[in-house]
Amino acid sequence: MKKISLYDTTLRDGTQAEELNLTTEDKIRVARKLDELGLHYIEGGWPGSNPTDKQFFREIRKHRLSTARITAFGSTHYHRTSAEQDPNLASLLEAETPVLTIFGKTWDLHARTALGVSLERNLELIHASLEHLRPHVDELFFDAEHFFDGYKANPAFTLDCMKTAHEAGADILVLCDTNGGTLPHEIVKIMADVQKHLPDAQLGIHTHNDSELAVANALVAVQHGAVQVQGTINGYGERCGNANLCSIIPCLELKMGLDCLGAERLKMLRDTANYVSEVANLRPFLRQPFVGAAAFAHKGGIHVSAVLKDSETYEHIRPESVGNHQRVLLSDLAGKSNILFKAKQCGFDVDRNDPRLEILLDDIKAREEMGYEYSVADASFELLLREKLECPDPYFTFHNFFVLDSKREEDELPLSEATVIVSVRGERAHTAASGNGPVNALDRAVRKALERFYPRLKEVRLKDFKVRVVSGVLRDTGGTASFVRVLVESSDGQNHWTTVGVSHNIIEASWQAVVDSINYKIHLDECEAKAGKGDPGAP
Amino acid sequence: MKKISLYDTTLRDGTQAEELNLTTEDKIRVARKLDELGLHYIEGGWPGSNPTDKQFFREIRKHRLSTARITAFGSTHYHRTSAEQDPNLASLLEAETPVLTIFGKTWDLHARTALGVSLERNLELIHASLEHLRPHVDELFFDAEHFFDGYKANPAFTLDCMKTAHEAGADILVLCDTNGGTLPHEIVKIMADVQKHLPDAQLGIHTHNDSELAVANALVAVQHGAVQVQGTINGYGERCGNANLCSIIPCLELKMGLDCLGAERLKMLRDTANYVSEVANLRPFLRQPFVGAAAFAHKGGIHVSAVLKDSETYEHIRPESVGNHQRVLLSDLAGKSNILFKAKQCGFDVDRNDPRLEILLDDIKAREEMGYEYSVADASFELLLREKLECPDPYFTFHNFFVLDSKREEDELPLSEATVIVSVRGERAHTAASGNGPVNALDRAVRKALERFYPRLKEVRLKDFKVRVVSGVLRDTGGTASFVRVLVESSDGQNHWTTVGVSHNIIEASWQAVVDSINYKIHLDECEAKAGKGDPGAP
Repeated sequence: MKKISLYDTTLRDGTQAEELNLTTEDKIRVARKLDELGLHYIEGGWPGSNPTDKQFFREIRKHRLSTARITAFGSTHYHRTSAEQDPNLASLLEAETPVLTIFGKTWDLHARTALGVSLERNLELIHASLEHLRPHVDELFFDAEHFFDGYKANPAFTLDCMKTAHEAGADILVLCDTNGGTLPHEIVKIMADVQKHLPDAQLGIHTHNDSELAVANALVAVQHGAVQVQGTINGYGERCGNANLCSIIPCLELKMGLDCLGAERLKMLRDTANYVSEVANLRPFLRQPFVGAAAFAHKGGIHVSAVLKDSETYEHIRPESVGNHQRVLLSDLAGKSNILFKAKQCGFDVDRNDPRLEILLDDIKAREEMGYEYSVADASFELLLREKLECPDPYFTFHNFFVLDSKREEDELPLSEATVIVSVRGERAHTAASGNGPVNALDRAVRKALERFYPRLKEVRLKDFKVRVVSGVLRDTGGTASFVRVLVESSDGQNHWTTVGVSHNIIEASWQAVVDSINYKIHLDECEAKAGKGDPGAP
Repeated sequence: MKKISLYDTTLRDGTQAEELNLTTEDKIRVARKLDELGLHYIEGGWPGSNPTDKQFFREIRKHRLSTARITAFGSTHYHRTSAEQDPNLASLLEAETPVLTIFGKTWDLHARTALGVSLERNLELIHASLEHLRPHVDELFFDAEHFFDGYKANPAFTLDCMKTAHEAGADILVLCDTNGGTLPHEIVKIMADVQKHLPDAQLGIHTHNDSELAVANALVAVQHGAVQVQGTINGYGERCGNANLCSIIPCLELKMGLDCLGAERLKMLRDTANYVSEVANLRPFLRQPFVGAAAFAHKGGIHVSAVLKDSETYEHIRPESVGNHQRVLLSDLAGKSNILFKAKQCGFDVDRNDPRLEILLDDIKAREEMGYEYSVADASFELLLREKLECPDPYFTFHNFFVLDSKREEDELPLSEATVIVSVRGERAHTAASGNGPVNALDRAVRKALERFYPRLKEVRLKDFKVRVVSGVLRDTGGTASFVRVLVESSDGQNHWTTVGVSHNIIEASWQAVVDSINYKIHLDECEAKAGKGDPGAP
């Protein structure tokens, strides 16, 4: 079975998308998730171009990754300097990654217009840049920018660029359809000519979706000999996006019989896609192939009855193979095994026929229809499991809160203050605090009240706070309405956890997420105390 | 030049999409718009299956269409009756369309499992249904459901179905990839075999996007002899959708040199795509190829400077050829050329050497470092340009606000109330309002105060609200700190705009975005008033 390597550029080319903006912490989280999925290369950014990317390469070194190799990306050296003195190439080496990817111009129009150099000088830039970097890295890839457009305009020059990169030591020559305008049959024809001229070069493919053909073009290239596929999660990228790895991977694995992740990891695909869209705070695309919420949703009466007889009748693959599930509006049979799986993961000993499981399933379905998103909010999910399966005593009782925000001058920041009354084991605590906004003030006030009883709450910091309007289903009427979903990420220095709240009212949604965060921390400390100085559970 | 006929099924297969629900009036509006675009066939629905579709066929007869022929869709007759006595076929004839499309089973699994008939009976159903309808219509098409899956399972049976349909008088045999699981090279191989067995049959293609290959599969089929392409506007359809005509048409016209609409009508493509999404009340997909808002949007500094030199460098077609236009996004890589471009687009006459441009650039950079995201918040950016370039009088003066959120019971929603004092031309207004959270209450209170002076603010609705924590740069110290970024999307029914606010305090950030939204609406109305009843500027 031929092995195809998967090269993810969500963190670099993906962030060229209009709506995608990631902090360094976001990037670290995404990189770790992609490593878990089993991708082979993760392009972390362009260290020469901005401080966020530089920071990423410093941070990611502290994490031990299991399968992925981190890659830094940059251009050939500036034409008025030398490779040795080029600050861009220097910052690539400072990134200290085992793999580097250099892009160079291979379209004569671009060399002349965008760079403003002669075609000869362009070949020198490619050669000198790759030769300079070669001794410092394990693997060196060459991204041939605008390869197909370049070939169509001036095949001799484009092939010269490829030969130069090959001779200068590039391990893989990546053919880029940068503008996304190439048709599948053109890919076939042009690749054949490259292979004729460079029979011993390894080829990769990097396509864009401007003609809605990025996935097809990538697959066709693999069929004709490409050994590496570049793309992004959910197809994020500039303009119409990059080739969507969430479609390419299952096509390679399930339809073309090629090995990239293996069947077990493939099941994490949907979870990974959702995770990245949540970190990016972007609405997932409902109709997205393979991993979208509608990908295996059946509406028509004929389809539903046929699917219930034999799901192969209207489903091209088994949804579970990519971690998705069939949705049939009448009776959703999926879910029970997922919950069982997660419950066991959290340490609960539940039997498949336990009647509490049905109640839990109903409750989770109702909540997810409203907009709760448990795939990211693991801590809230674990608390819900505990509540339904163990009915523990609450750590504290809520009585009331008031939050006041006031602003008296145009240029003055508003003042936010909160008062909270709670009680623990019959003892009341009434506290007040101020903060950067109502949620921050509320969070500080309630923690201040509880710290007397649970001193380790002092360790908790709110790391991130995300709010989105979601269209939830109104259970009573079957209609839909706008809800607000709040995701809160907390940390006590050692553990990180995410909690969720959903309500019509943003303060209520935030309150739910904050309360879950506090309860989760107390629970973690309890587990740690029980286990002596052992592992504090699964954060 | 070969002529390809375009067959739209937005009104039938498209409405199988989870989110797409159209009334009869909606369907009439869409059909007239598709006729204006120049599509050749418009499948209006399945008259046997629901009253909306029956009504559509009665109504559409009253409209004179210029190019399109209306088509009714239905299945082969019920297996326990005859074609003559089948109510489904009768309702097709009652639709009185010049064209009918009949779908039949061509996969043995489906004939046996879904219909529950023998393979011989299935052939009879196809033959009798088509033969019965043939004398009553100008054109008769046969949709071979699950054609490719059927062929892979039992080629002899599938080819028998095709021969039967051909002999019974079908003008075109439409090969359907109903489950969307077929790869482009399989289309080529299977079509060649059909053509060998039925050399004088005309073929059509109908694909689904479950593998993100619907457009590629349709194009490949045309290259190998299909004369009709079926699809939907924006790719709407069940699960992952149908083949997207908005991508197929420009590929055929601009890349494959085939005639379908002609260059003039092709320019209406984007307008048509937006019109259909408006009628359906669905958010257009930002990254949609050819017609999406991001399809020709450039963000990276390198791309922007190259595109300004020669747009071919990063655009695969001229955006105007499909009625779209180039957009330059601002981002933290923003340079002088980006801003100059945007200023000109907003109607400001600024010279490259204008000293105000330097000040503006510095200001924008400082704001983007803090976390302002002007690439999405076009309205806030335009207001900033106006402020810096024209120093206009403010529309109102802020004095103060108070917001109170209170919650008194565990199961009670918090109550949010706001009071605001503002003045317009020396006149003070003091109002209060409640809402689903502090920002909603604040927004309502300030608009209530201003509606006395600017009555058209009543038209504005907050459509979406997004909050996230960003790591901004502290200008004074060079360190970083957490800021909150709020994005607000507003609409007055006609125009949509997005505004942004950034602050340590979420209430302040929201306040900025809300104030920008109000100012932008007043500004839009002013422009409209100045222009008479003309275009209100570039929203």
